[in-house]
Amino acid sequence: MAQFLASELESLGAEVEQRPLGKQPGKEHLDLPPVVIARYGNDKNKRTILVYGHYDVQPALKEDGWATEPFQLTVDGQGRMYGRGSTDDKGPVLGWLNVIEAHKKAGVEFPVNLLCCFEGMEEYGSEGLEEFIQSESKKFFKDADAVCISDNYWLGTEKPCLTYGLRGCNYYSVSVSGPAQDLHSGVFGGSAHEPMTDLVNVLSKLVDPQGNILIPGIMDLVEPLTEEEKSLYGGISYTMDNLHESLGSETGIHATKERTLMARWRYPSLSIHGVEGAYSAPGAKTVIPAKVIGKFSIRTVPNMESEDVNRLVFDYIKAEFAKLNSKNKLDVWLQHDGKWWVASPKHWNFAAASKAVKQVFGVEPDMTREGGSIPVTLSFEQATGKNVLLLPMGSSTDAAHSINEKLDKRNYIEGTKLLGAYLHYVAEEPMNM
Amino acid sequence: MAQFLASELESLGAEVEQRPLGKQPGKEHLDLPPVVIARYGNDKNKRTILVYGHYDVQPALKEDGWATEPFQLTVDGQGRMYGRGSTDDKGPVLGWLNVIEAHKKAGVEFPVNLLCCFEGMEEYGSEGLEEFIQSESKKFFKDADAVCISDNYWLGTEKPCLTYGLRGCNYYSVSVSGPAQDLHSGVFGGSAHEPMTDLVNVLSKLVDPQGNILIPGIMDLVEPLTEEEKSLYGGISYTMDNLHESLGSETGIHATKERTLMARWRYPSLSIHGVEGAYSAPGAKTVIPAKVIGKFSIRTVPNMESEDVNRLVFDYIKAEFAKLNSKNKLDVWLQHDGKWWVASPKHWNFAAASKAVKQVFGVEPDMTREGGSIPVTLSFEQATGKNVLLLPMGSSTDAAHSINEKLDKRNYIEGTKLLGAYLHYVAEEPMNM
Repeated sequence: MAQFLASELESLGAEVEQRPLGKQPGKEHLDLPPVVIARYGNDKNKRTILVYGHYDVQPALKEDGWATEPFQLTVDGQGRMYGRGSTDDKGPVLGWLNVIEAHKKAGVEFPVNLLCCFEGMEEYGSEGLEEFIQSESKKFFKDADAVCISDNYWLGTEKPCLTYGLRGCNYYSVSVSGPAQDLHSGVFGGSAHEPMTDLVNVLSKLVDPQGNILIPGIMDLVEPLTEEEKSLYGGISYTMDNLHESLGSETGIHATKERTLMARWRYPSLSIHGVEGAYSAPGAKTVIPAKVIGKFSIRTVPNMESEDVNRLVFDYIKAEFAKLNSKNKLDVWLQHDGKWWVASPKHWNFAAASKAVKQVFGVEPDMTREGGSIPVTLSFEQATGKNVLLLPMGSSTDAAHSINEKLDKRNYIEGTKLLGAYLHYVAEEPMNM
Repeated sequence: MAQFLASELESLGAEVEQRPLGKQPGKEHLDLPPVVIARYGNDKNKRTILVYGHYDVQPALKEDGWATEPFQLTVDGQGRMYGRGSTDDKGPVLGWLNVIEAHKKAGVEFPVNLLCCFEGMEEYGSEGLEEFIQSESKKFFKDADAVCISDNYWLGTEKPCLTYGLRGCNYYSVSVSGPAQDLHSGVFGGSAHEPMTDLVNVLSKLVDPQGNILIPGIMDLVEPLTEEEKSLYGGISYTMDNLHESLGSETGIHATKERTLMARWRYPSLSIHGVEGAYSAPGAKTVIPAKVIGKFSIRTVPNMESEDVNRLVFDYIKAEFAKLNSKNKLDVWLQHDGKWWVASPKHWNFAAASKAVKQVFGVEPDMTREGGSIPVTLSFEQATGKNVLLLPMGSSTDAAHSINEKLDKRNYIEGTKLLGAYLHYVAEEPMNM
């Protein structure tokens, strides 16, 4: 995929490099996929915009329940383009390439110098990229006047948004082990401590069915809601129907749009993703698994520092396990973390994007935050010292990370126009910070 | 495997048939594996013994953690024969064939008429066999004077046992579903009810870490312990070290051998086997699974009737889920059940086996019950109206259903002698019931 992307960029006339990122930590036989960097234009009189995207995708198997082959783009009668990565993030990456191609074919001068940074490990915590961004901050990235990332989603399906905040993510594993090997539940059921019983017990203490995190101290780290911030949520173009449409069900927790958006953007959440080591296939197996590993993550917000969250999580889980009086052994560790991020939405970078939305879609964009994490956002901000804008292409129903991921044709085509228009407005904006 | 077994029996001179059992319920494109039945000898002056075994095995993959290829028999320096099915139940089935072969080669008259019934769906609830046994009760099985099943294990590693009781097993699935598809935990965490949160909560209410079943009413169904029964446990050749050796750890729940054996044999237990639909691979995935199915089973004992257990389980789980105030949907159902069984250990069938143990191993066998279920035991008892004896070949450390399943050479060879000696004593025993 890196090779394909590099050759596409080259054929458009960009200067392209595939930069190695070394070996995958803990898997020293495996090269990390290279980061593809490119420069298009080198005019000292133009602004330089750094754009980021990723060419890797989430895992996908047809048998997960996809209606179509996940790695074959399939367009239905309503213009929905199905395929893994269509919206996250191959569609937006191609959008940037299409913008260059469109200018060339139309004979229009490109309004800015464009720096591209496309990585291949985003879905696995962007391994190796942080160090690369730091080391290139005064080299490849040094001319950047602002950064634009198209790797998130509209809030609904009709109206574009500009995104100025993201939640972080701390991903944990908690293992419980006891017997030396899996046991037959007939032979040992009732006479041995079962790791799965203990794990289920511990996991049940983390979050309640209304989404409240039960780990003491976590909520004390959260920045209090001010009246000013509270007032922002009423104007956002979003309805409970939007939520239900994207869920495909009416299983939302909160009664109002305001509380729903706050739960998504400015409060932490805790999700239990699954269990490794237990029986997970269809059918029946009368096994007592010897070692099980629960996976859960906490979405973090200002002002939750990762170390504080880790300490609270580890202490609480160990204390809850101790209460069980089990002879099994528990371990809990952080698998990876990424910090939350909040930017200034009054910067010229955002002003230019806002005008572009107005021109392409005829509406003012919503100024939003996001529940997901894009850790590189913060990395780029810290390395360049410049404003970072998130300018999404896909809509809320695109099902990123799920089966039947798609990108609507309208979002792809108008979204590509938006990326192009943004570069033109960016070239005109006065410097304001 | 059925074809192999049938041809081996034929080459020994038995009359063999492979009987079809129809289609697999719910999978109408799939034939059930045939049951292999055989008759060896047809002398009206001899007793007729019906023996049962199974040629199917539990699933096994090298990557589950096997030290050797699971489907390639590998013998180590201590005579441990590793391979899936070595002890459960291909070893014992071959034992019966070896007994016939040994008589032929030694020129010794076979002491009984032998009826064999070897099935291929034991590890999946013996689908189709129950009906077959019923329909053949007055046909192929009508001459049987007693039944012998070699498909369980010694209590320890040194001393053989005869088994007169088994626990039953009710296997349940409980599903929780909400959104139409898996969700991104960044986008939806905190704003949607998560099926996994609800499931973990419900599963945590079933059993405590000390093995106590928390479903009200279940323990009221259990036959009370009498002083007479209680006194039987002291004499059994079993130690806590045996438990620890078979566990490979010191994670037993109870402090004494008596309480451990009672927990295994005469009290119910509840094991949580795993979760289908959640993330179960190594690594990290920030998914909110849309539908998750928990699997658990209850080992049943006298006098727990399956319908009563089901009613208590279903009512309790639904009531506990209702308390969660979740908008998700819960469903709970019985996947399969098999009843507990207790036989008379004073029957001539047991007396013959006891003498055989004395002759081959030089000790009196322990009279035991088992924690596992072999539902066909009860089916044969009901269909033939005759006494059923469980005469195990393998030992407690064989790791049936686990990785690195094995059968010790001593158990295989002396165990085969035991099966043969049993048939000789059975031929001599006076009729007592």
